[in-house]
Amino acid sequence: MWDDWIADAAATREGAGLTRTLKPRGPDDGVIDLAGNDYLGLSGHPDVRRAAAEAAMLWGGGAGASRLVTGTLTLHGDLEEELADWLGQPGALTFSTGYHANLSIVSALADRTAHVVSDAHIHASLIDAVRLSRAQLTVVPHNDVAAVRAALAAQPGVRTLVLAESVYSVLGDEAPLTELAEVCAEHGALLVVDEAHGVGVHGPGLVHRRGLAGRPDVLVTATLSKSLGSQGGAVLGPRSVLDHLVNTARPFIFDTGLAPAATAAALAAAQIARSHPHLADIIRFRVIGLARTLGVPAPAGAVLSVPMPSPEGAVAAQAALLTEGVRVGCFRPPSVPDGVSRLRVTAGASVTDEEWDRAAKVIETIVGEVR
Amino acid sequence: MWDDWIADAAATREGAGLTRTLKPRGPDDGVIDLAGNDYLGLSGHPDVRRAAAEAAMLWGGGAGASRLVTGTLTLHGDLEEELADWLGQPGALTFSTGYHANLSIVSALADRTAHVVSDAHIHASLIDAVRLSRAQLTVVPHNDVAAVRAALAAQPGVRTLVLAESVYSVLGDEAPLTELAEVCAEHGALLVVDEAHGVGVHGPGLVHRRGLAGRPDVLVTATLSKSLGSQGGAVLGPRSVLDHLVNTARPFIFDTGLAPAATAAALAAAQIARSHPHLADIIRFRVIGLARTLGVPAPAGAVLSVPMPSPEGAVAAQAALLTEGVRVGCFRPPSVPDGVSRLRVTAGASVTDEEWDRAAKVIETIVGEVR
Ligand SMILES: Cc1ncc(COP(=O)(O)O)c(C=O)c1O
Ligand SMILES: Cc1ncc(COP(=O)(O)O)c(C=O)c1O
Repeated sequence: MWDDWIADAAATREGAGLTRTLKPRGPDDGVIDLAGNDYLGLSGHPDVRRAAAEAAMLWGGGAGASRLVTGTLTLHGDLEEELADWLGQPGALTFSTGYHANLSIVSALADRTAHVVSDAHIHASLIDAVRLSRAQLTVVPHNDVAAVRAALAAQPGVRTLVLAESVYSVLGDEAPLTELAEVCAEHGALLVVDEAHGVGVHGPGLVHRRGLAGRPDVLVTATLSKSLGSQGGAVLGPRSVLDHLVNTARPFIFDTGLAPAATAAALAAAQIARSHPHLADIIRFRVIGLARTLGVPAPAGAVLSVPMPSPEGAVAAQAALLTEGVRVGCFRPPSVPDGVSRLRVTAGASVTDEEWDRAAKVIETIVGEVR
Repeated sequence: MWDDWIADAAATREGAGLTRTLKPRGPDDGVIDLAGNDYLGLSGHPDVRRAAAEAAMLWGGGAGASRLVTGTLTLHGDLEEELADWLGQPGALTFSTGYHANLSIVSALADRTAHVVSDAHIHASLIDAVRLSRAQLTVVPHNDVAAVRAALAAQPGVRTLVLAESVYSVLGDEAPLTELAEVCAEHGALLVVDEAHGVGVHGPGLVHRRGLAGRPDVLVTATLSKSLGSQGGAVLGPRSVLDHLVNTARPFIFDTGLAPAATAAALAAAQIARSHPHLADIIRFRVIGLARTLGVPAPAGAVLSVPMPSPEGAVAAQAALLTEGVRVGCFRPPSVPDGVSRLRVTAGASVTDEEWDRAAKVIETIVGEVR
């Protein structure tokens, strides 16, 4: 029964040309990497490497237990203070992944009696979070503030969370945060903004840039695994909300604390990102230039999204680029909310100007051939 | 609306004496730690620290992307090979937390048309996993094989997963794995065994010890955060199942790969655990001895569970022990499936014999006073 079901699923994938396989890479394979999310190039920064190594030597390999038992390290506190201070928030709570941060905030605040209004392009972790919460869900069209307003107005007096990303991971565009915060305030809703692709790329994030940081009705989640070059996640907001998570969020309570090396790496990266704002300028400048060359909209963050005619075309272009020594990402169904396959090009600050220029030329040529 | 709701929840917790707060610890606070899950003392082993530090220096702070993009490192492959070889399984797939491993296996295999039969004491991550899957759920009494058989017989022809832990985290007892595997085989069900507290404490785990390793209808999940002294998780089983996860498990696909330092720490720990079986003997010997002294059942793993008359009594005993320089864990509602508060004593192999003897005496005295 199970064997057949698993084999059928594999055959269906294979037939649709959608089989995914893992391609292991070495520590440095000589390829120009424009596929990862290490936007500021901080994962490999000497200070970040050293901070991680020193923490491993001092603290050992793991936190050893749940944060609620003996898995809360003073090192976690150091990171939380730094993040809260940088992002202009009253407090921060770290999680072992960004996924856990999102699962936690939504499932701890929403329940069967709550309402969640979610943008159609929201990340898988937030979709799973809503499912865990068992809240009633309204999905609104992408970046449609009027639809959010209508969804809120339709259920007055119901505790409601509105979910958005500051910079969306697939399309690479930006949420209308100011308008969303206004609509939420009008209706007493809480706005949860996932800044996975905003923090670092936009310094302290777009919630901060839009003057919304520290508002008690605008909560932020972040990952430590992208611009901060490490692993883990965080929720930022009022202490009352963080205390609520500590007491009720299952993916926080029943999970081992973030490992010391990852915590220290994220802390070092945050300090570097704060004191070196030009790192973000480099990548913004690059992707905006490439967007112009390719004739696609300039992205709001560090991710350039290049629509392709088909999944096969996207895969072929990706393979051709790799032959030329340039690695880019590729989004295909079911990872794309609108069914459009895309190349995904990120401009990590660790890539030199020469490498970037060479890569940009190759991308222009190959994308031109496929489209 | 939200403010009141959050404040009410806090007041309810406070009134019930169930408020939890985080207590940060330093890298070494001089306390005898019998609260964590670093059962073999490997988190602090010099080789583990060094492996983590070297990996951070070589690879950087993070994996940089999802495993499906550029986040699969050859280092992940090394760990997966070692784990599969040790546990006697055809293959292994690592995840960024043990929680993610459990969320993934259940939500990728079960859907609305599937049936999940779960032990009543199953871990929160597996409960959340079932909720994500939307499968129909039957909860059976703890370790009740007849109830599992009845649940399977009641729905012949339905794709069914049976969920168990090899060693249960709260009660510390063992699942009847041989019988469960037999019942599953009779009914064409898949048995998923969470070896979070089994691997390491029982060498390659109880699935292996019971001669069930490598059976295609017995899948294993494990954490890297307990006996392996690091962070992360793994699923072990047939390649067809692992391929299915790579292609369909959202908490794998949409999550950044496990950080290099954590991967290397777990790999070093696995190698040490394999080549030093006496580490597990030490802790088993200790907890069995203490169980006898306290008149509680000998645990199946490294966790001694000591029932207490009340949540307040448990907290008071825990505080009194800390004053004496001994840290133990404390389980209170809602983390206990049966509502009974407990002290939770683990015997990490990094504690010296002298420390253990002193701690055991203090525990005997204080538990005797409270009960
Ligand atoms: C928007 C968004 N949120 C959350 C996550 C999850 O973060 P992490 O990989 O740190 O678990 C990701 C990507 O992985 C993401 O793109
Ligand atoms: C039985 C069991 N499964 C899974 C987990 C989750 O593992 P991790 O902490 O590595 O996420 C835990 C504990 O944390 C556990 O006790």
